[in-house]
Amino acid sequence: MLTERQKDVKKYIAILGFGVVGGGCADVLAQNKKLISERCGFEIEVKYILDLRDFPDSPYADKVVHDYNIILNDPEVELVAEMMGGSHPALEFSLSAMKAKKSVVTSNKEVVATHGLELLACAKENGVTYMFEASVGGGIPVIHTIDTSLVQNDIKEIDGILNGTTNYILTRMNTSGAAFDEALAEAREKGYAEANPAADVDGIDACRKIAILAALAFGRLIAPESIHTEGIRSIDSVDVANASDAGYAVKLIGRTFAENDKICAYVCPMLVGASDPLSTVNDVFNGIKINGDAVGEVMLYGRGAGKMPTASAVVSDIINILTGNGVSYSWRRAEEGEITDFSDVVSRQYIRVSGESGLLASYKKAGDGAYITDAMSEADACKLEKALADEGCEIKARIRVLA
Amino acid sequence: MLTERQKDVKKYIAILGFGVVGGGCADVLAQNKKLISERCGFEIEVKYILDLRDFPDSPYADKVVHDYNIILNDPEVELVAEMMGGSHPALEFSLSAMKAKKSVVTSNKEVVATHGLELLACAKENGVTYMFEASVGGGIPVIHTIDTSLVQNDIKEIDGILNGTTNYILTRMNTSGAAFDEALAEAREKGYAEANPAADVDGIDACRKIAILAALAFGRLIAPESIHTEGIRSIDSVDVANASDAGYAVKLIGRTFAENDKICAYVCPMLVGASDPLSTVNDVFNGIKINGDAVGEVMLYGRGAGKMPTASAVVSDIINILTGNGVSYSWRRAEEGEITDFSDVVSRQYIRVSGESGLLASYKKAGDGAYITDAMSEADACKLEKALADEGCEIKARIRVLA
Repeated sequence: MLTERQKDVKKYIAILGFGVVGGGCADVLAQNKKLISERCGFEIEVKYILDLRDFPDSPYADKVVHDYNIILNDPEVELVAEMMGGSHPALEFSLSAMKAKKSVVTSNKEVVATHGLELLACAKENGVTYMFEASVGGGIPVIHTIDTSLVQNDIKEIDGILNGTTNYILTRMNTSGAAFDEALAEAREKGYAEANPAADVDGIDACRKIAILAALAFGRLIAPESIHTEGIRSIDSVDVANASDAGYAVKLIGRTFAENDKICAYVCPMLVGASDPLSTVNDVFNGIKINGDAVGEVMLYGRGAGKMPTASAVVSDIINILTGNGVSYSWRRAEEGEITDFSDVVSRQYIRVSGESGLLASYKKAGDGAYITDAMSEADACKLEKALADEGCEIKARIRVLA
Repeated sequence: MLTERQKDVKKYIAILGFGVVGGGCADVLAQNKKLISERCGFEIEVKYILDLRDFPDSPYADKVVHDYNIILNDPEVELVAEMMGGSHPALEFSLSAMKAKKSVVTSNKEVVATHGLELLACAKENGVTYMFEASVGGGIPVIHTIDTSLVQNDIKEIDGILNGTTNYILTRMNTSGAAFDEALAEAREKGYAEANPAADVDGIDACRKIAILAALAFGRLIAPESIHTEGIRSIDSVDVANASDAGYAVKLIGRTFAENDKICAYVCPMLVGASDPLSTVNDVFNGIKINGDAVGEVMLYGRGAGKMPTASAVVSDIINILTGNGVSYSWRRAEEGEITDFSDVVSRQYIRVSGESGLLASYKKAGDGAYITDAMSEADACKLEKALADEGCEIKARIRVLA
């Protein structure tokens, strides 16, 4: 970066999808045009914006096209920034761009987590680059950090608060004692949750993101459907309060680590201890904690969503590729035998029951009928649940404890 | 990164200074040799280690040399990693390496903050690269993040907890109520403070780091002696406790921002509010919060010192340069008129006095004789101090409030 100015050199890109992030991308490039030219040594110009709609009142109205072939057939366009969301036609459009020798950047976690191998193979075949900084952590430069600054580290583990909507809901449940439904309604009012919040509150969004982070760390992409994923719908404010009293915050955690040549990845609500920096990542913020063998623990914190932060990440990929600092990936598919079975995952358990339990009596109390157990495997936790039921207890909550 | 393997290609480097960080650098390269070769596409080999001492029992004993000319005259050595500390002879050695067309990386904040312009000019003249990731934030990749991932952002402000020793001391004063001297003794016992802790506790180390961060953000290097710098020796545990009760943590903050075409930079203890993620950066950890116009607030957190984290950062620079992803800088000196006068800096003030004060009565109380004022300039705060003295009050403490 900050290279000598190549006078009057322009590099052309196209934007696919002129929604919130697509608009933000155009805005960042326009707003910081001078600074970007100075630092890159050339100008970056948006030549086309592909969308089904017209935007007659937009300053970019004259760039809007409806026929993707115009972009594919224009040899001046070096790079396509896909911000359409969803797998289709984002996948097909990205593949055809790369076949036309254009690099592609995306903010689309679904297409990366689901079709990443095909997309990266296509990039390689065509000698172009496929990058996706904005797909995880919004504006937080977590992917570039893993790829470059931490490349000399053997990554041991990544734990992240990867979804702003659920983090906002859990923060509100903690600070105001609100029930899940109330906190969700509040998130909707503030524009932090969509009309259909399933992808967020059921952990699907976080699942895609941890799949991508696991692939970056361990070189193998786990299919999202093979990642144990739980959301936060069943979290009760009683348990959030109990956790808080015991020195924990309840957070939706995406977690991945490598052990015995297997990769473990899952998404679920967890109790995070007060000394863990993730416990203080609140509201819509995201935090991603990376543990490398040399660097130790590093955490990146910032806005995990939103127009300008996400656009900032898209533009960083655009600049990296156009300045010749793109990254190529050699991921392969994680085979069945390379993925830790969730029943083998070991954690301490927060358990709340109604009724008297002799089985739990030896564990640390954490509120009325609530206990924090010693570490046990998921398989053993399920057995414990069954034994508690046999004792006549009703399981009101079971939440795993991080670390 | 992760490029195609260039079979049997080796790139040679030399290490200057085989102390803690120099040893860590050799260790990271040895320990992760396979992983680094795979990701870089070539092997990185330490050919020489320059030190005054011999290390007969070290696995690297055969690489140790005492004559720098052996390194300078060996055309195979592409890069020199300077981890000597101090300005001299680090400056001279770095300049002569670059004149011999070798790139240089360093962990040495003193030489970068004091002689950065000369070093960068020399790199430019000789067509080589000078990088210094490890000079700020230890293992935290803050410099590379500003240079690459945030390059499309107009950086507005950087606030950082940049010194682990002082952060450990302040954390202990907060958690155990220890006095400064006790907490310093504890830091010494744990190996977190040196026999002569002046560079840490008087803010000199943080001052050098904020000078470097300001130059990265604003392109102009402020001489460390022009940066208002206060340490933490005079912090009383009473004030740490008062701050805590009022919802603040006392932290040694390095701060820089640009305003009205001037750059402001200073180092001093500050009250940091509980909602600021810096307030939860504890013990020897560092945190650096960057505010960019597109990305908003991003914070990086990790170990700001220590053998392996710092070495991790040195090796990331080595890899970036050897893979052709080095960064060149065009800093210039910040002239007198471009630097905000500290007397113009505006903040709220925590003030504790003994005796009755009518002047403070309207402000928010924050403990016995302690108040938090509205925002005022340093000039006005000094006037207030004088007026309080005229009232017959003794000023026991004045600590600025961040934001």
